[in-house]
Amino acid sequence: MDVENKSGHALFDPVTEADRAAEQAMRAFIGERFHDHGIIGEEYPDKLGTARHIWSLDPIDGTRSFICGLPNWTTLIALLEDGDPVLGLVDAPVLDEIYVGSGNEAWMVRSGGQVAIRTSQCCALSEARLSTTDPFLFGDDGHESCGFERLRRAARVTRYGHDAYAYARLAAGTIDLVVESGLKPHDYNPLGPLVRAAGGQVGNWSGGTDLASGAIVAAASRELYDAAVELLAVE
Amino acid sequence: MDVENKSGHALFDPVTEADRAAEQAMRAFIGERFHDHGIIGEEYPDKLGTARHIWSLDPIDGTRSFICGLPNWTTLIALLEDGDPVLGLVDAPVLDEIYVGSGNEAWMVRSGGQVAIRTSQCCALSEARLSTTDPFLFGDDGHESCGFERLRRAARVTRYGHDAYAYARLAAGTIDLVVESGLKPHDYNPLGPLVRAAGGQVGNWSGGTDLASGAIVAAASRELYDAAVELLAVE
Repeated sequence: MDVENKSGHALFDPVTEADRAAEQAMRAFIGERFHDHGIIGEEYPDKLGTARHIWSLDPIDGTRSFICGLPNWTTLIALLEDGDPVLGLVDAPVLDEIYVGSGNEAWMVRSGGQVAIRTSQCCALSEARLSTTDPFLFGDDGHESCGFERLRRAARVTRYGHDAYAYARLAAGTIDLVVESGLKPHDYNPLGPLVRAAGGQVGNWSGGTDLASGAIVAAASRELYDAAVELLAVE
Repeated sequence: MDVENKSGHALFDPVTEADRAAEQAMRAFIGERFHDHGIIGEEYPDKLGTARHIWSLDPIDGTRSFICGLPNWTTLIALLEDGDPVLGLVDAPVLDEIYVGSGNEAWMVRSGGQVAIRTSQCCALSEARLSTTDPFLFGDDGHESCGFERLRRAARVTRYGHDAYAYARLAAGTIDLVVESGLKPHDYNPLGPLVRAAGGQVGNWSGGTDLASGAIVAAASRELYDAAVELLAVE
């Protein structure tokens, strides 16, 4: 497995041949069927034009897990309509699990069958199962780290290292709260449609719905989202 | 799923009915076949007597992952002969993967087939894929946290949250270094036989082979173990 360092020595950001090959395969598939749709991906230049429909692709989310032989990396796909994500899909191929949500229907597809999924509706921080990918990835000014530290101490249990798979398990009801920052559009585009379709709440750290800052809070309920945002904002 | 808090409000340590039922099933199985063997487990009192052979059982390692619906919890089994672990087994049932090592043979069993496994033999910290379960679980005096922080900065990439599954992936060659503290005998007993059989090194944070302190370093090679211990020990 060839692993290349995208960003020099300062920050390790592995890109594999598999990453690029998978995005090329998806681009070809979409191009054949929906030749007037746009495509934005992690690895190749955007193809936008005047398309009303745009596909957002992240062939391997969780590349660090991927290169460590861990099973929880995923492929992320979203469909945007007039700029808004309307369908979100998280595929965990090693686990044989696909999570997909749109409107108010969310499903997990496994071994050919599919089941409707729903968030836990947990509404108390003290009961919440919290997840973030890496507690050392928060912004360097300490504001984000301190906010997360308050949440971690308030939550019932915290798990790390699951990238987008954590949002999939939130949609399926076994994780209650995911808090991250630094996400890119190909990371966060599928999360809103999937989590909202399962009855959860997705927004930014300030209580708004615009995810462009990449600082994301996803929660099993509106009440839990509000409680998390309140604790993250304390100075 | 009933989750009970073993240690009061100060520290969340979930125990499920499944945990206890699984240990009872294993105890019954061993009792029928090897009635003169001893058994030490996480959930029930030790059965020792004068047995030369003792089974060490941890029905669910990674209970936090288990209650969060994550796939990387495991069942840990070790066989001790005259006090020394001689066989180690890590079973990840959701992933359909069993890792077993004894002497100098280590295997991964999957979908009925088995393949010999080997550590990566990585010997440089700068190339190492490091794993620990929770960076906030290190001792409160800061000594352990600082040691781990030095390692984290020296390693190529760090992953969190995998409990004993990280040692299984180390034996299988996709993780190079695991550093933890606070492990109990039922946690660490299987790790030595498994990792050593796959060509790796297991010891404590001081460079010795006695694991009773629960502060464990497992590495893909002797050189990597020594480099990690050196960095952990800096004052």
